[in-house]
Amino acid sequence: MLEPIGVVKSNFTDPTDWEEMRKYISEIVVKPEFKDGLYKIERNEHLQIIFQFHLSEGYKLKAPRRRGKVRGVFASRSPKRPNPIGLTTVELIEKEGRILTVKGLDALDGSPVLDIKPHSPLLDEPQKR
Amino acid sequence: MLEPIGVVKSNFTDPTDWEEMRKYISEIVVKPEFKDGLYKIERNEHLQIIFQFHLSEGYKLKAPRRRGKVRGVFASRSPKRPNPIGLTTVELIEKEGRILTVKGLDALDGSPVLDIKPHSPLLDEPQKR
Repeated sequence: MLEPIGVVKSNFTDPTDWEEMRKYISEIVVKPEFKDGLYKIERNEHLQIIFQFHLSEGYKLKAPRRRGKVRGVFASRSPKRPNPIGLTTVELIEKEGRILTVKGLDALDGSPVLDIKPHSPLLDEPQKR
Repeated sequence: MLEPIGVVKSNFTDPTDWEEMRKYISEIVVKPEFKDGLYKIERNEHLQIIFQFHLSEGYKLKAPRRRGKVRGVFASRSPKRPNPIGLTTVELIEKEGRILTVKGLDALDGSPVLDIKPHSPLLDEPQKR
């Protein structure tokens, strides 16, 4: 059902670096056939990126997570999930053609991108409702 | 690649009502085989729900959106997208067995749920970085 609309280009290739990744700049290269979908996206300061954890294998429904606390997979942000979909809010630095330069994307190099949405404080930040 | 982990139960069946939907209560019924993935999810006040816009058909890369402004599909939250994936932050009201009662989910009755993640102000609200 899902076809990637683009791919992540990043210097990061090691998942254990993920806390560092968020500080760095990466690129989202959108496929030529979807370029028009970026029209006026530069009006947005922040974007929601939905991508595939393409190197993720398997998952545990219930396991110790950060700081050793046992949590269900849906109560964690682990990349090892029944559907290995990642979600990150990034800062849009620049758009050039079909390449978006973004800050804060914790996706490894080569991650397939499924969707890009403008971040909306109203929809995405509960206390702003 | 993706298999729904549950389904939305809601009184809403008409997509044109979507602004109203956000005020109302709906249920997410998780499949029995994924129930353990909800362990301690009640510790979270807000959740990110990733679901399929299962009635969405087709899309326009560039079209007038809200208030008539022309925007690319990736600069809009339209349900008509190359990959019809919805994303909404909801308030978790109650967990009972494998049923989550939530407020603010703008998903129609019967929408397949792909993933549930705890909302994290650090990851999901740009100004908190």
